[in-house]
Amino acid sequence: MKTLSVFKPIREELELVEERLRQIVRTEHSLPAHVLSSLLDSGGKRIRPALVILSSKFHTCDSEKVRCLAASVELLHTATLVHDDLLDGSLLRRGNPTLNTSLSTGAVILVGDYLFARAADLAASTDSVPVVSIFAQTLMTICGGELRQAFEEGGKQRTKEGYYQSIYSKTASLFAASAEAGGVLSGAPSPMVEALRAYGCNLGMAFQILDDILDFTGDERELGKPIGSDLRQGLITLPLLLFLEMYPNTDVQSAVCDDPQLREERIQTLVESVRGSSAISSAWDEAERFTVRSKEAIRSLPANEYRQVMLELADYLLGRRR
Amino acid sequence: MKTLSVFKPIREELELVEERLRQIVRTEHSLPAHVLSSLLDSGGKRIRPALVILSSKFHTCDSEKVRCLAASVELLHTATLVHDDLLDGSLLRRGNPTLNTSLSTGAVILVGDYLFARAADLAASTDSVPVVSIFAQTLMTICGGELRQAFEEGGKQRTKEGYYQSIYSKTASLFAASAEAGGVLSGAPSPMVEALRAYGCNLGMAFQILDDILDFTGDERELGKPIGSDLRQGLITLPLLLFLEMYPNTDVQSAVCDDPQLREERIQTLVESVRGSSAISSAWDEAERFTVRSKEAIRSLPANEYRQVMLELADYLLGRRR
Repeated sequence: MKTLSVFKPIREELELVEERLRQIVRTEHSLPAHVLSSLLDSGGKRIRPALVILSSKFHTCDSEKVRCLAASVELLHTATLVHDDLLDGSLLRRGNPTLNTSLSTGAVILVGDYLFARAADLAASTDSVPVVSIFAQTLMTICGGELRQAFEEGGKQRTKEGYYQSIYSKTASLFAASAEAGGVLSGAPSPMVEALRAYGCNLGMAFQILDDILDFTGDERELGKPIGSDLRQGLITLPLLLFLEMYPNTDVQSAVCDDPQLREERIQTLVESVRGSSAISSAWDEAERFTVRSKEAIRSLPANEYRQVMLELADYLLGRRR
Repeated sequence: MKTLSVFKPIREELELVEERLRQIVRTEHSLPAHVLSSLLDSGGKRIRPALVILSSKFHTCDSEKVRCLAASVELLHTATLVHDDLLDGSLLRRGNPTLNTSLSTGAVILVGDYLFARAADLAASTDSVPVVSIFAQTLMTICGGELRQAFEEGGKQRTKEGYYQSIYSKTASLFAASAEAGGVLSGAPSPMVEALRAYGCNLGMAFQILDDILDFTGDERELGKPIGSDLRQGLITLPLLLFLEMYPNTDVQSAVCDDPQLREERIQTLVESVRGSSAISSAWDEAERFTVRSKEAIRSLPANEYRQVMLELADYLLGRRR
């Protein structure tokens, strides 16, 4: 794994987390090693483990437990991706084939379940009840958000409020939890933990908005998946919502509901229209607002090199192209 | 819910657990109330919550936390059933339609995931790290067992050793964990916790063997599912394994692998053969041996009314017809 350059001051620690993850791959006999290692090798940026490490740096901390927690959040994240890809029927993630291409549905469900369990076990090995509670609550938030979406599907038109709620559940909640749990584990006082959580939460919101923008504007090779994937799955994200505010008569339903051939054409036309509109820069402005808020949240923290990394990370994520 | 008569001395406490589960149904907004309530109403015997309560009775205990733990193990059990039924494609459980009949695969996966999360959150609310560890380890054991089965499927012929390993993962591990965690939560000393765990483990083994016998000998109306369900899913359980020891030339592969019509005929013939053989009573002898072991395990516990319930429960489960 190549560490993001912004993570240089914690590179060694991230490598130890990586080593911990490798160790799980080596000692894990319940699922074939190649399944787990392909999941872990698939090019994740390890932002969540980094948030755990960075957030633990403002107070005393037991670095072994911090590593367990960092590995735990990465496995939890991986577990949600496994089930997500299954729900979406995705065949590619970060340019690599998903488990759906090689395993049965049943096996993919079980791999996801097993990773949840492994992640919970790692969280428990921090010996911190508050950390385990954060872990469980976050898993509830993530699954709850997806459930609401599943049961509302085909229902009412999505609103911006609904969009924000959904990206909070899907992404920001785990960013927030990683930062919060890192702080809790270090024994940081409540206001500091609150600040860390707010940083993570806003960072996660910005991160997901940018992800959703890149689904319209990105380079397919860099992204490792086709452009317009969200729309193809019937998912209406911020760029399209902002486009619809400007052009309320756009027929989105026919683009996501009709027969396959027409559908694909209409989706491509719609993606082109959104990409060429000012909806993209408006969405980017929103992402920037969350980025600014994330940086403001940690203004009161000690101005050490770790806070510096956190500030730089926020800018880096806003500027990324994949 | 009707409490098993053997649970009379803890009926009130079981009702409070039931009330806790109802409360979750009422306050749960992420999935429609009828989905959760139909899952919880579907006639489970609440053996696992009862094990938690009974095991907490040999030392001081915080009854509110015991109830959280009892509700947690029942939800964990329910979550595993939801994913199991999906993996098996089962349409009936205890005579009621499974979620597979009314929800999409994706929604069923999410309902299971959400219940795992809810169960983990309840486990964390006991404020006991060892209890959470037991919870996570058990979930790993359960999923790990299913994974091994999934990845071995179509592989080598099942052995008795493999069978015992699989029913431990599938059933006995959660019985053992319920009894162990109840003891841990009450602050019972280690030897007592060990005894409780051994009781739960052996009880669970006996329970599953009897389940597997009933799949050959039971009454379809009482069971709430068709006879021979395991075999129909390609699952070779103890009665058939013992039958194969006596008649090693039996062609099981053609019964589980051929074209649908022939397959069903062959399965029915095989079920009849096993049912009419001494394999059934040999399997029952095995179940009885585990029952005896479960009772022996708690011989050293204080001879109070709760130990009495545990002894009676073991006999009751061995004599049940569904």
